[in-house]
Amino acid sequence: ILQSMEGLEDLVAAINFAAIKHKDQRRSDPSKTPYINHPIGVMHILCKEGNVQDVDVLKAAVLHDTVEDTDTKMSEIEDNFGSHVRSIVAEVTDDKSLPKAERKRLQVVNAPKKSHEAKLVKLADKLYNLRDLDRVTPEGWSEERVKQYYVWAGQVVSGLRGANKALEEKLSEILAKKGVHLDKILSEGTTD
Amino acid sequence: ILQSMEGLEDLVAAINFAAIKHKDQRRSDPSKTPYINHPIGVMHILCKEGNVQDVDVLKAAVLHDTVEDTDTKMSEIEDNFGSHVRSIVAEVTDDKSLPKAERKRLQVVNAPKKSHEAKLVKLADKLYNLRDLDRVTPEGWSEERVKQYYVWAGQVVSGLRGANKALEEKLSEILAKKGVHLDKILSEGTTD
Ligand SMILES: [Mn+2]
Ligand SMILES: [Mn+2]
Repeated sequence: ILQSMEGLEDLVAAINFAAIKHKDQRRSDPSKTPYINHPIGVMHILCKEGNVQDVDVLKAAVLHDTVEDTDTKMSEIEDNFGSHVRSIVAEVTDDKSLPKAERKRLQVVNAPKKSHEAKLVKLADKLYNLRDLDRVTPEGWSEERVKQYYVWAGQVVSGLRGANKALEEKLSEILAKKGVHLDKILSEGTTD
Repeated sequence: ILQSMEGLEDLVAAINFAAIKHKDQRRSDPSKTPYINHPIGVMHILCKEGNVQDVDVLKAAVLHDTVEDTDTKMSEIEDNFGSHVRSIVAEVTDDKSLPKAERKRLQVVNAPKKSHEAKLVKLADKLYNLRDLDRVTPEGWSEERVKQYYVWAGQVVSGLRGANKALEEKLSEILAKKGVHLDKILSEGTTD
């Protein structure tokens, strides 16, 4: 919870840090939207639709792709934003040394084991990406690839349930439109 | 001053709004940095270096170029962020129907007449742009054009003095390095 202006200053610093780190990246939509619009949008979803008031979660949201997708080191996150924010970012960062299929499998398996804070960031991340996919097909994606993304996203989201009712309802709705029904998915992660 | 989480949610909404509005714009540096990095940086300068804690000023900072440089209408700013934020944004928005030279002249003449809040945004805007210019010459700018920018910026900043000591000291330093000395400028605006 925000207890002073310091929380606000740190959040603004995290937003500025992420904007600089992502400055050379673009989203994969045809209009090449700046990548930073995505982490900002994820933070906004948490705030506005998820009613999340934990500023560390909002900082982690805007920073969530910096280590995975730029030259940012975890130590930079810790030095600038503290160990709690670092630990949330670490939880939502895929290990890019693994093959993509394995990373996607691990997201499904590990979703239920994440902390509450990390689950919030992942729910908002998935909601943003599914809305983006609903709006426009990324360059080079086939219809089949889009369909498989929905199926996979459903498996991940299934393992994140219980963290935020409002976000889960919106995810459930957008997935159901494409024939993916959360209540019919048995998440792998919940069985171990 | 931020009095509740509502202030934070509105600030995040303003950042998200600006990122979407500026999504197709790039800065004029050779690496084509997303334009949104500039308004975010201006907000960050106010927070961190100017120690500004008025959330409406921070909202206006991140929104400051939306009306001037995108299809955003003043009524959208008012509808989404209220009349106080709208009035600050209006004060820092140039009238693009005027020739560029006249807009630049008016910035000098009108600087001293601006509200305290608008002066803060303009000081941080100029500091960001001068640092950018110090770092890299925009595409197509001659040495003479850069020099004239410093002279003009000095005249504007001279008219904004008294609003924030920390920002003014940093501006004074960066301008002095290029031979522009604030204490030797008689601002046009102060004489009327
Ligand atoms: Mn993401
Ligand atoms: Mn500006």
